[in-house]
Amino acid sequence: MKINGIPYRTIWPDPVATGLVRIIDQRPLPHRFVVEEIRSVRAMAEAIREMHVRGAPLIGAAAAWGMALAIQPSGPDGAGDWLIRLKDAARELESTRPTAVNQAWAVERMLAVGRACASSEQARVRLREEAQRICDEDVAACAAIGRHGLRLIQEIAARKGGAPVNVLTHCNAGWLACVDHGTATAPIYAAHNAGLPVHVWVDETRPRNQGAKLTAWELGEHGVPHTLIPDNAGGHLMQHGLVDLCLVGADRVTRQGDAANKIGTYLKALAAADNGVPFYVALPASTIDWSRRDGVREIPIESRGEEEVRFMEGLAPDGEVRTVRICPENTRGANYGFDVTPARLLTGLITERGLCPATAAGLLALFPERDPGATIA
Amino acid sequence: MKINGIPYRTIWPDPVATGLVRIIDQRPLPHRFVVEEIRSVRAMAEAIREMHVRGAPLIGAAAAWGMALAIQPSGPDGAGDWLIRLKDAARELESTRPTAVNQAWAVERMLAVGRACASSEQARVRLREEAQRICDEDVAACAAIGRHGLRLIQEIAARKGGAPVNVLTHCNAGWLACVDHGTATAPIYAAHNAGLPVHVWVDETRPRNQGAKLTAWELGEHGVPHTLIPDNAGGHLMQHGLVDLCLVGADRVTRQGDAANKIGTYLKALAAADNGVPFYVALPASTIDWSRRDGVREIPIESRGEEEVRFMEGLAPDGEVRTVRICPENTRGANYGFDVTPARLLTGLITERGLCPATAAGLLALFPERDPGATIA
Repeated sequence: MKINGIPYRTIWPDPVATGLVRIIDQRPLPHRFVVEEIRSVRAMAEAIREMHVRGAPLIGAAAAWGMALAIQPSGPDGAGDWLIRLKDAARELESTRPTAVNQAWAVERMLAVGRACASSEQARVRLREEAQRICDEDVAACAAIGRHGLRLIQEIAARKGGAPVNVLTHCNAGWLACVDHGTATAPIYAAHNAGLPVHVWVDETRPRNQGAKLTAWELGEHGVPHTLIPDNAGGHLMQHGLVDLCLVGADRVTRQGDAANKIGTYLKALAAADNGVPFYVALPASTIDWSRRDGVREIPIESRGEEEVRFMEGLAPDGEVRTVRICPENTRGANYGFDVTPARLLTGLITERGLCPATAAGLLALFPERDPGATIA
Repeated sequence: MKINGIPYRTIWPDPVATGLVRIIDQRPLPHRFVVEEIRSVRAMAEAIREMHVRGAPLIGAAAAWGMALAIQPSGPDGAGDWLIRLKDAARELESTRPTAVNQAWAVERMLAVGRACASSEQARVRLREEAQRICDEDVAACAAIGRHGLRLIQEIAARKGGAPVNVLTHCNAGWLACVDHGTATAPIYAAHNAGLPVHVWVDETRPRNQGAKLTAWELGEHGVPHTLIPDNAGGHLMQHGLVDLCLVGADRVTRQGDAANKIGTYLKALAAADNGVPFYVALPASTIDWSRRDGVREIPIESRGEEEVRFMEGLAPDGEVRTVRICPENTRGANYGFDVTPARLLTGLITERGLCPATAAGLLALFPERDPGATIA
């Protein structure tokens, strides 16, 4: 997508230096645009852990590049050593954040490529190629999600006869959460680009405010009409017919369709169900955890520092980004990063292969290669 | 309740000067404790509108004192003129905020007293007495709510055998929202004072953060264990058995039990219903609007300025309270102050006369004088 008219991805390798990858550091957004240079697996793991990059698909892409960086020529690299380094990198990258499944998926894929290589020279080349492939596939998947989801918006637009289609989204499942396009935002961008009138209710998304900081910024850069709302507002809007469609992303979706996403998503899904508003989760296949069924019981939920709850960051009148404490000095905070929306509350899933019900049967119909019965037969 | 060990109410008249009422200015809390002097109906209306005081019961008490101030000797006061001034004051105070019903209730009651007076001298005395009576009745009502609600906490505590009872509350329905004790917090204080182990999940309550600023502060001053959480967290906590009871206040409750309260309450009620967590609304009778039935359709919802959404206020490291912008410069915000929780989602109501189901029959059983059939018979 474009920033000030210039097309960007969220992560890209240096065209010359094989040991250098660049990312958009998302922490200073929307107040400052900063590109960060990453030169080691340690720096990449830190960038994931401290959320310089975030969003399940982008975490996957970043982990892939972390694996590639792990074996670029720097330091001693004896025979066989590069595979050990790769395995160490895999452990470090997989442990960065617990809820998303994409980094484990990407790391396993990179490890498999590494194991098939005969030499460190070959592995260096092949792993860079594979990381780039993972990025390109994510871009293609998001573009496909956009095409499939566009039909939902087209149908609503046809019914509304020219009035704007109001889409509510939570957190940032935009292009900043992916390599490009976004998951939940891909249908929105597709609709906007096709000339459909679309307006987005942007949930602020406390405590880290990814909606206010990132989604509002990227929609604004692309010219999509939007309005920032507190996370508390969505139910009221739905009660009064002001939301036509909810579109969110996911950090992990189980094989029965339960969706872990940014904390608060479950509350919006409840309100959507209570008011008959369609609620869709958009995700690439890399976000599906085929090994889990019951998301509420089985998906680990990240707990983060209480400072994110007790403090708020923003632009002060003097032009500096400052942090202010919003509660009494001695008040403690709890900070759960995600919640799980049970599949029963979802109208459907939007994947790169199309739409499906949020059920095991629905997912297997789109991904028949994951059906154990079919594999045996 | 006590601040630094000294007992306070949120509003009180000067013991000598008849034209002077003091309020706790709630805007600088929790960072600074400021008492403000109010000397005119205009200043009181401004204090309500700009939320120096807020919370439905306290708005009622403040409006009552505004009426009393309106006719204290200041400026010309010819024969008959004091009643015109009283009616003007009523209009000004009733229009301050649209969703709560308490100021209309208090203003009507004060007007009726004024109309029954034979002279301005008599009215000046009687209206001060009536305002004080409204305050004292609110204190008594909140104390009674505390006694009735305490039983709910006692029952849960007995089941949990010594483990803390986890209560979730939204916004501030504490003593700062009333004259003393609070509505939703009254049972909590009663339980804490009775030695029951109680812990409160405090919803931050964006956009104005009454939970982080006020509820956390007053619970802390009283020594009640509590944890600040983003508004997004309650559903996750309920899914995992970490909430035993939800207790909130109300700005207006219809005769069928629909409850307008701070925006986001509806989302928590949905989560409570989905997880079998009891959800109670605590309110004095002055908050009931007997003239309305369907709260979602009939209760006017206040829209406030977008600055409350786009900016956050807090204590900066330099010790000053500062405001920071949390979104891009051009992002617009929407700011609905309240939402309505349909009665079907409520386990019950806690009033000064006891608990009842959130139904027309339940309310009329507690307030039989409001039953049109009974009145006729």
